[in-house]
Order: sequence, then structure tokens, then C-alpha cells
Amino acid sequence: MKLALLGCGLLGGSTAAAWRRAGAASTVAGFDRDADAVQRGIALGMIDTAAGSVAEAVAGADCVLLATPVGAMPALLGALAPHLQDEAIVTDVGSTKAGIADAARAALGAKFARFVPAHPIAGAESHGIENATSELFDGRWVIVTPTAETAADALQRIEGAWTACGAVVERMDAREHDRIFAAVSHLPHLAAFALMRAVAAGAEGSRCLQFAGAGFRDFTRIAASDATMWRDVALANREALGRELTAYRAELEALQAALDRADGAALQRMFEDASRVRRGMRFGAFGRNEGEDGHDE
Amino acid sequence: MKLALLGCGLLGGSTAAAWRRAGAASTVAGFDRDADAVQRGIALGMIDTAAGSVAEAVAGADCVLLATPVGAMPALLGALAPHLQDEAIVTDVGSTKAGIADAARAALGAKFARFVPAHPIAGAESHGIENATSELFDGRWVIVTPTAETAADALQRIEGAWTACGAVVERMDAREHDRIFAAVSHLPHLAAFALMRAVAAGAEGSRCLQFAGAGFRDFTRIAASDATMWRDVALANREALGRELTAYRAELEALQAALDRADGAALQRMFEDASRVRRGMRFGAFGRNEGEDGHDE
Repeated sequence: MKLALLGCGLLGGSTAAAWRRAGAASTVAGFDRDADAVQRGIALGMIDTAAGSVAEAVAGADCVLLATPVGAMPALLGALAPHLQDEAIVTDVGSTKAGIADAARAALGAKFARFVPAHPIAGAESHGIENATSELFDGRWVIVTPTAETAADALQRIEGAWTACGAVVERMDAREHDRIFAAVSHLPHLAAFALMRAVAAGAEGSRCLQFAGAGFRDFTRIAASDATMWRDVALANREALGRELTAYRAELEALQAALDRADGAALQRMFEDASRVRRGMRFGAFGRNEGEDGHDE
Repeated sequence: MKLALLGCGLLGGSTAAAWRRAGAASTVAGFDRDADAVQRGIALGMIDTAAGSVAEAVAGADCVLLATPVGAMPALLGALAPHLQDEAIVTDVGSTKAGIADAARAALGAKFARFVPAHPIAGAESHGIENATSELFDGRWVIVTPTAETAADALQRIEGAWTACGAVVERMDAREHDRIFAAVSHLPHLAAFALMRAVAAGAEGSRCLQFAGAGFRDFTRIAASDATMWRDVALANREALGRELTAYRAELEALQAALDRADGAALQRMFEDASRVRRGMRFGAFGRNEGEDGHDE
């Protein structure tokens, strides 16, 4: 399978490398607005050839993988559509799924049946193809959100590629996907960005940060994430995310009310609820426990 | 130095083990409301003798270490005061410092000069003496908050014990300490507890948690912390913590307003601010970077 990689960052590079290692891709043609990223991907052995344009990347491809920030995908779909081979599959690795399906339907017309929306629950707060790794998806979920129009063979091909990388595929409705990841991914990112800003902007901000411990380090790790990527995610999923943010703010308000009235019993009950749920959690498709090293959605 | 350990959990056990390894303590007499915890500490070689009461633990001690939740410390200071040897030092490892100094002044009277308030910036979301380790403090800050009355020799003794464990001591005013840790420790804990509750309580809570990735895992790690400990911390530092929580909620409100009006430029600016500060951060007393393993305050 000849792969056209549009967007040569951490997730795109990791996908190309993982698919090739698993035998799901034979050659990789890369395109990125940042031509230097493509060259770094070639130097790393993750990309074979640098395409001079979207058209050139897509021309001979059996599969086109969109791995840009989600905000760039609608225009990219419009640009690539005229150059697709007849049976070529188009897929993506975006963190939101309902909007991209709408954009693909509009851009691809009859070829929309060859579009397979996907979201690997893997990534990192680091970015750039130099941080990519073919092992990123081992034991991770990949959510696919096929529509009624999605061709069965295209869906199977993409699901097979992910499975070959050690990932576990879960099919889901796009809107359910967006609700779920609003809660467990997009909200925590916003909460971490906001906390980082609140602390840094305080009167003693830099002195505070000097003494931050491992709890702060872990809590704010995702606040180092790419601003453009997360701006796009927030905008693309703003309805579901808005609801989650409202619910979170209500929890914080209840917490502050308990704090204001020095209600130790209420605070303890809230902390116990949270602590019990968190201790019972397992992560990744195989329900691993805490120890594993940290890659992110 | 004969040590009386009052409170035989992760932090107390680690301190006893670290001090002994560093030669700062010779023998350790342990007392805990949970007699079984003391026995586990003895089995682990961290405690030498089980004391039947606070009085018995304190009687022959050169140094008394308070390592209970901070809410239990005032009563404990009252209970131990009559049994202290003349030159015995009293110290603690609590996460808040202004309240404990007030309580110690009231309970210890003339012996208040022998009280050295301290806070090692180390710990974990795990708890219990079975998770204690003598290496917990290596490269970590220990904040000491002496008062005008604190005897120089007692202060030097305690600072020396921590330094011998590989920690770096910083002296600070107790109220400054409480403001700083309200921001970088207590607030993140509350934010993580609240997010955990908000997500778990949602209509699709358990399905959401099934697909949570490494970002959620790291962000909510501290939500597994001990509820009683954090109830006490929140109550003991509720003024400073209340101010930080208010500032955090204002950031979230601004974020939600930008989201509601689909203001991509504002979102990007906020995310970039946070991301830039976070990427520039270093952790621990020697300014280590990300990779190190996770112990918490």
C-alpha cells in the first residue's frame, strides 16, 4: 500500500513508521507546509520521498493519511479530492470526528465512501517528527467512526493496518466519540492550560513555579501541548467541550463553597469519591496499570 | 539521635528510613493509631520499636517527628508536650505551615523554641508505610519555616538531617510557604479531584473512563491521593487556597467565554502562554527535566 502522508509531525510520522513496520504500508510520500519536517522524516527513515505539493503526494497513493491539526483538514480534503486515484482510501488521525466527516462528505462527493475517520489514542505533549516512534500505538485504542456510506473494504483495510501495529480498534459513532473525548481528553487539556496560566500570572508566579513538585509536573504535563492543535480541537468540538467545561466549573464551584464554609465532611466526601474512582482506573486497550511510560492522545 | 515517629505512613516511614540511612537518626520508636502500620514498619526495618502511646514514644526521644495528616497535629502536640525531654526537638512534615506553628506555640509553651516546622516536597499519591522509601528526598526541596523564637541549634540539626538525605533546604516565611503551595500543590489536587468527579458523574462516565489516555492518566494521578490528608490541607490553608481557586475559576471562565464565541485567536494565545511557561519549567531542587520518576508533595 503506497501511503501519502499529509502532515509530517509526531502522529503522522509515528503512523507511517508503525504501518510500515507492520507491513501495512510499502512506500511513504510525505508532504508538509514545513518542507524541513519532510526532510527530517526522510533522514529518520520514516518517509521515502518528499512531495512538492498535495497533488503530487496524492497522485499515486493507495491511501492518503491526514495528520495535520484538525482545523487544516477541510481545506486539505478539498485540495486532495481531484487528485485521488479511483480506489484510494482517505483516512485521518484527528482528535475530533464529527466535523471531519462532514467536511469529507462535502469535499469528496462520491468518493466519501472511501473515507475512514480514525483517532488513535496515542500521542504526546512533545511534537515534531523527530519525536515520532513506530511503537506509539502498541496496546492503544484506535477509535474508528465509520458512517453509513463507508465502504466495508476500506474500513477493513484501515482497521487491519492499526491492528497490525498492536492497537485495538473500537468502532463508535462520531458524535459519541466527540462527547467521550471532550470529557477525558479535551477538558483535561483546557484545565491544565488554565491552571498553568493562573499560577504563572499570580503575584509570586515564578517563585511558585520554582518549588513545584511532581504532582504539579504530572498535572500540567499536557499544558506543554501544541497550541494550534488544541485551538483546532477546541473549536471543532466546542459544543461537547463547552458542556464538559460547564460541568467541571460547577464541581469547582461546589468545592469552593465547601471550602468557604470550612465543611470538612463535604470536602472529604468529594475527595473520597474522586480518589476511589481514580484508583480503580486502568489505562490503554489492555487495561494496563500506572507504571507504563507516558504517551498521550 | 533517638527519633519518635508519630504517624507511620508513606512520608513518616520514608523520613525515618532516610534519616537513618544518612546517619541522622540512630533508633526509631513508632506510634500510630493504626498499630498494624507500626508493625509493618518494623517488618520493613524502618521502625525499631512499637510505642504503646504517644507518651511512650516521646519519653526517651531526642527528636519527635509529626507525620500525621495536618488536622491531627494540634491535638498531638498537646498530647506529647508533657512528655518531652528538656532539649528534645519537635518537627513535622506537614503540607501547610502557618497553622501548625500557631498550634505548636500554644501547645509547647517555653519549648516552642525547639519546634522546627518543615515540609519536604516529596511524597506520592500512593500511601502507607509499605510504599515508603529512604530515597524519596534525593534532590528534593525541603522547606523549613522557622519563627523568630526557633532555636538555632534545633534548626541546624533538622536542616542537617534533611541535607544528609540529599534534599536541599530552603528557609521561608510560613505564610509565604502556604501561599506558594496553595498555588502549585493544593490547587492542582483540588482541580484533579474535581475533574475526576465531573467526568465520572457524567451520563457516559464509565464509558468515558474506559477510553482515557495517558494525558488523563497523568493529569488525574494526584486525584488518587488520600482524602483525609487533603481535607486537612484544604482546611488548614483555606484562605490562600480559596484565592488560588478563585483565580483558576476566573481563567476557566475566560476560556469558556472564548470557546463560546469561537474565538480561535484568544484560545491560541491562552494555550501558547501556558505551553511556553510549561516547557520552560524544571523540577526539583536541581532543576531536573521531565524524565524522572514520579514522587509528589
